Amino acid sequence: MARSSSSLLCLSLCLFALLSHTSQGRQQWQQGNECQLDRINAIEPDNRVQSEAGTIETWNPSHQQFQCAGVAIVRRTIEPNGLLLPSYSNTPQLIYIVQGRGHTGIMFPGCPETFEESQQSGQQQFQEGGSSQDQHQKVRTFREGDIIAIPAGVAHWCHNDGNEPVIAVTVHDTSSHLNQLDNNPRNFYLAGNPQDEFQESQQGGRLSRGQDERRKRRQGGSTSCNNLFCGLDSSFIAEAFNIDESLARKLQGENDNRGSIVRVEGQLEFVQPPRRIQEERQQQGGRGGRFQPLANGLEETFCSMRLKENIGDPSRADIFTPEAGRITTVNSHNLPVLRWIQLSAERGVLYNEAMRLPHWNLNANSIIYAIRGQARVQIVNENGNSVFDGELREGQVLTVPQNFAVVKRCESDRFEWVSFKTNDNAMVNSIAGRTSAIRAIPADVLANAWRVSPEEARRLKFNRQETHLASSRSQSFRAVA
Amino acid sequence: MARSSSSLLCLSLCLFALLSHTSQGRQQWQQGNECQLDRINAIEPDNRVQSEAGTIETWNPSHQQFQCAGVAIVRRTIEPNGLLLPSYSNTPQLIYIVQGRGHTGIMFPGCPETFEESQQSGQQQFQEGGSSQDQHQKVRTFREGDIIAIPAGVAHWCHNDGNEPVIAVTVHDTSSHLNQLDNNPRNFYLAGNPQDEFQESQQGGRLSRGQDERRKRRQGGSTSCNNLFCGLDSSFIAEAFNIDESLARKLQGENDNRGSIVRVEGQLEFVQPPRRIQEERQQQGGRGGRFQPLANGLEETFCSMRLKENIGDPSRADIFTPEAGRITTVNSHNLPVLRWIQLSAERGVLYNEAMRLPHWNLNANSIIYAIRGQARVQIVNENGNSVFDGELREGQVLTVPQNFAVVKRCESDRFEWVSFKTNDNAMVNSIAGRTSAIRAIPADVLANAWRVSPEEARRLKFNRQETHLASSRSQSFRAVA
Amino acid sequence: MARSSSSLLCLSLCLFALLSHTSQGRQQWQQGNECQLDRINAIEPDNRVQSEAGTIETWNPSHQQFQCAGVAIVRRTIEPNGLLLPSYSNTPQLIYIVQGRGHTGIMFPGCPETFEESQQSGQQQFQEGGSSQDQHQKVRTFREGDIIAIPAGVAHWCHNDGNEPVIAVTVHDTSSHLNQLDNNPRNFYLAGNPQDEFQESQQGGRLSRGQDERRKRRQGGSTSCNNLFCGLDSSFIAEAFNIDESLARKLQGENDNRGSIVRVEGQLEFVQPPRRIQEERQQQGGRGGRFQPLANGLEETFCSMRLKENIGDPSRADIFTPEAGRITTVNSHNLPVLRWIQLSAERGVLYNEAMRLPHWNLNANSIIYAIRGQARVQIVNENGNSVFDGELREGQVLTVPQNFAVVKRCESDRFEWVSFKTNDNAMVNSIAGRTSAIRAIPADVLANAWRVSPEEARRLKFNRQETHLASSRSQSFRAVA
Repeated sequence: MARSSSSLLCLSLCLFALLSHTSQGRQQWQQGNECQLDRINAIEPDNRVQSEAGTIETWNPSHQQFQCAGVAIVRRTIEPNGLLLPSYSNTPQLIYIVQGRGHTGIMFPGCPETFEESQQSGQQQFQEGGSSQDQHQKVRTFREGDIIAIPAGVAHWCHNDGNEPVIAVTVHDTSSHLNQLDNNPRNFYLAGNPQDEFQESQQGGRLSRGQDERRKRRQGGSTSCNNLFCGLDSSFIAEAFNIDESLARKLQGENDNRGSIVRVEGQLEFVQPPRRIQEERQQQGGRGGRFQPLANGLEETFCSMRLKENIGDPSRADIFTPEAGRITTVNSHNLPVLRWIQLSAERGVLYNEAMRLPHWNLNANSIIYAIRGQARVQIVNENGNSVFDGELREGQVLTVPQNFAVVKRCESDRFEWVSFKTNDNAMVNSIAGRTSAIRAIPADVLANAWRVSPEEARRLKFNRQETHLASSRSQSFRAVA
Repeated sequence: MARSSSSLLCLSLCLFALLSHTSQGRQQWQQGNECQLDRINAIEPDNRVQSEAGTIETWNPSHQQFQCAGVAIVRRTIEPNGLLLPSYSNTPQLIYIVQGRGHTGIMFPGCPETFEESQQSGQQQFQEGGSSQDQHQKVRTFREGDIIAIPAGVAHWCHNDGNEPVIAVTVHDTSSHLNQLDNNPRNFYLAGNPQDEFQESQQGGRLSRGQDERRKRRQGGSTSCNNLFCGLDSSFIAEAFNIDESLARKLQGENDNRGSIVRVEGQLEFVQPPRRIQEERQQQGGRGGRFQPLANGLEETFCSMRLKENIGDPSRADIFTPEAGRITTVNSHNLPVLRWIQLSAERGVLYNEAMRLPHWNLNANSIIYAIRGQARVQIVNENGNSVFDGELREGQVLTVPQNFAVVKRCESDRFEWVSFKTNDNAMVNSIAGRTSAIRAIPADVLANAWRVSPEEARRLKFNRQETHLASSRSQSFRAVA
Repeated sequence: MARSSSSLLCLSLCLFALLSHTSQGRQQWQQGNECQLDRINAIEPDNRVQSEAGTIETWNPSHQQFQCAGVAIVRRTIEPNGLLLPSYSNTPQLIYIVQGRGHTGIMFPGCPETFEESQQSGQQQFQEGGSSQDQHQKVRTFREGDIIAIPAGVAHWCHNDGNEPVIAVTVHDTSSHLNQLDNNPRNFYLAGNPQDEFQESQQGGRLSRGQDERRKRRQGGSTSCNNLFCGLDSSFIAEAFNIDESLARKLQGENDNRGSIVRVEGQLEFVQPPRRIQEERQQQGGRGGRFQPLANGLEETFCSMRLKENIGDPSRADIFTPEAGRITTVNSHNLPVLRWIQLSAERGVLYNEAMRLPHWNLNANSIIYAIRGQARVQIVNENGNSVFDGELREGQVLTVPQNFAVVKRCESDRFEWVSFKTNDNAMVNSIAGRTSAIRAIPADVLANAWRVSPEEARRLKFNRQETHLASSRSQSFRAVA
């Protein structure tokens, strides 16, 4: 470890500093232009790219609602034993694992390779063709219900080691101040020959001429080589890696048609700790029982930073009403990396006919992905106009702009969703219920504001005892429309 | 209090975190476009909306100088016993109370209702039609000279409990990073049927076609219902509040023509502490004298955060020159909430013919509202061109862009103003006077820079002893022009 | 000092607060528009303004690559005994001293004049025509290899006191959130009659009509007076400085044709400590030897803040490979003011045929200025297309956008450069070498991603032992192209 400790120290401090001093800064949509949010739709992905071992579906990022919210959405399905090739993006990402389990390697610059095979034959030998021992950075497991945070410019790969497809929904925060390019989501692949995920989807959208030409050039370029090495001279690559040019050309993956999700041949092998305590005991065997610390002190600060949090488990609920449902939130208080990337999330479940009480997002846009079931949702703008009044179904995405009022009601046995929020401490203000703005107002102010009797004002304030979720106990009040 | 303490804790921590980690981030006007500030004008409001108990006047936010500064300005006049209906905005606001006194309720999500009527009849009963006891969040008093800070998305109402109209000037920071929508100021009303305050004013401005259409739709929609409840189904509202639909429809205020400032019938009654110590003693009577703390620890951190500071009282002056005038500033050092909303303010008074010495705003735009009297003002851009040279009169607004040089001289008995600054620690660099940039430069550098004699250089540096304000003692040097 | 200590305290605290709470916030290029970075060029300055004692060369700020990176570049050459007139800018600046030495005065508002001539004749007398003693703010020395940070709106002057021309390259961060105007670089001069440095250069560029007109007006205005005082009434100036109008008119410098860099007559005299310990001892003579502290406590916090760091000295290298070269970085960890202005820099040297290993900038754009020699550089975008593949020669500027991959190889005896980065903790992720992303990935993932054998995967990971710089030991792999 001592080999590179000084540069490590420097980089770790840099990263640590980033975490400590980041801002809430976020770009507005278009200065001087308008977010024309008179009509919002629940939409499904409109582009689909098939790979060898999975599919990538994207929502057209030039949809008005995504432009206004400053996000781009992707859903990836990785088949069992599929490997999502290593890549990084110009935007911070928040990933929700809808289904499945696997491993992900997230590579931080300058962090040590702390997962290493033990040295059975004395001195370590990593010369050309040397020992078969490997070492690499920490690999993390993930499972259904996990939120995973990936900072801008940080490369990562993913592998499905389970028996069912992994389904992951990713939000790219294109308006983040951490993205210093324009507001197009860009994926930089280190390997393979992947198609641009957002490429075709943009053709239908409102493209500036420049965009249009650029897209054409990309396609028309008929370049059969799309990863980062393709643009480098193979002799440069050979020199940089100290390898011969034939191997260098393999990095450019010219005739690789597998796409960005490839099938692993055999089993993917790498150094990893056992998943469970039991396995660990077996593995450690007679060697003393406790894992040896890999640490030089640095991994405990930045390099081993926690990047995921499970918000799918019912036991982790932050708000729970037995008849109505539950809500689980993750923000920079329980997952500190979110302070860096300025995003947070909420996972919710509503039971039959229960209601998420009307509220507005104080300081964030909210991008709802429907995981299961369907709900009726109403969204209201500043003029009191309904900009959405309809169904939100499994697999659809709906954007609720900052400050717009929203109410959801379950229309099936069970409605489940995850909301991505463009603030690391997204706040919600309820309109009805025990912690609502209405409850905070003196009854006489309410009576004068709405010209209701003092007794009606009190009913408005105190009839609803729940805070966020309410089951529809009295059928008489339900919608007929 | 314990009922909702866990969600309160969560929310309070969120808010507290916002305060601790906010940034200086602010949007530039239009990337790639220009702020054509060759000509700045002192302007008066160009739109006026009459309500039942007051008027709202707005300055057209598409004026070049407001677009560049990223602000929108509103002046509200609330007649005695008038109530400004509860609303929130997509921008942070800074309000200066030009005249009058009253109460304001500012509702923070999740904060407890700490103003509560005492329970005279044993257990609290807030079921439908139950006891007439009320409880609500803290209500704050305000008076002439107060600066009040309202974060984006936080709802508030206002009531005039004095004998003269309340006049309040509000700056909306539309370019704030806390506004994630576009740069239009938007007010979301919870009650009543208010007109869009910025609606008509924009018709004269440079509107994009999209804007124009949107405005038309708003008006043409002929919707007689504009508050947040109008866009929700009345059955949903009934269910959410657990009330019957007839009361739900009252929330939508369909036939309410009172506008956004309504007249309270009788006296507005709510729980409030006495205004003065004397009153308090009378009220507390034999009950021991000292107020009982309402606290559970949380209100002392976020929920009871100080949101106002009086900068009108002469005794609060930060800079004072008996013959010339005084300046009082409020920034995030003396009102910490300003660190969150990234604005600050300066209140100034100049006596007859006194001068605010030439200076530039280092890190902020400055929006001057003339409270009383008139002044001659000159503003200079980076090319040495005068972009404003004229009178600034009571009720007018003048924008001084960041870094532009500005000088003011009183042209009446007394000139009073308030400057809103787009930075929570706005800094000023004087060009003349004891703490000026000129004084900081070695005399020989001055002599060479301006080709003046060493003795003239010393006069430039040391002749003016005052720091910011100077009375014109020697009439000989006054302007003839 | 006590005279102005309260206002000083206030201002210093403000400035201190700025340092503590600043953000990473930075504007994207153009929301909704695109950075068309399909082709990047190495470019030379395209505008040149001759002054009496120096020249100012600028790169057209409307070049696509500068617009995208949000910067403007200037190179100033100051002849011996030349004085750059005091000015400030609407953007933070980072200056690299390519050659020469001199003094600079950087004037912070409200900071005391701590360089003062001693009072030989009892009481200090600074009335008109009084004693010849002078006092001014701290003056700093600079020399080749220094990085100097100037915050937005802070005025400064520069003097060449050496025997060779001072050559200084400055990057203006026009996209900084600290610039609240548009993204044009603007210099506000306090003296002289300087031409607009960016004026003519913009004529060739893609100007909006508004820009074009504005530029014309500037020129056509045929104003022979360009400094800040020109836009003020001379009677106002006279009153502000308490001087007569004839001296006031001298401040407007109407017939001054010397430009912004003027020749000092004789020697520039000001209070300054000796440069070396030896000189100090001589000067102090019998007076005790140790310098007396000038402090009142304030200069030790903000007013005496360190604003420069030498990154030219080889001994200060952060990365050093004897056969290949060295890299020295300066960021907010070793120069805290950079946290305020959100920029950092890297100084590099490559020896003959050595290579800066391929890498990407994780969180910053990088603007490379070639100081000496030439290199072959390749830059790759997210589609694997080469957007630059060519020579970078002494005096040219090349922009590497965030996340784009880049590799440099020295093509002369020695290639030296300085890179300005748009983040105060710019991070780099290597693609090859010991701390690279490739090394962080398990070998089996590499094998599957690139369809190479396990043994080839290990060669990719472990063949290159260096971290950032590599000499080309084996000639066989070099480029033929």
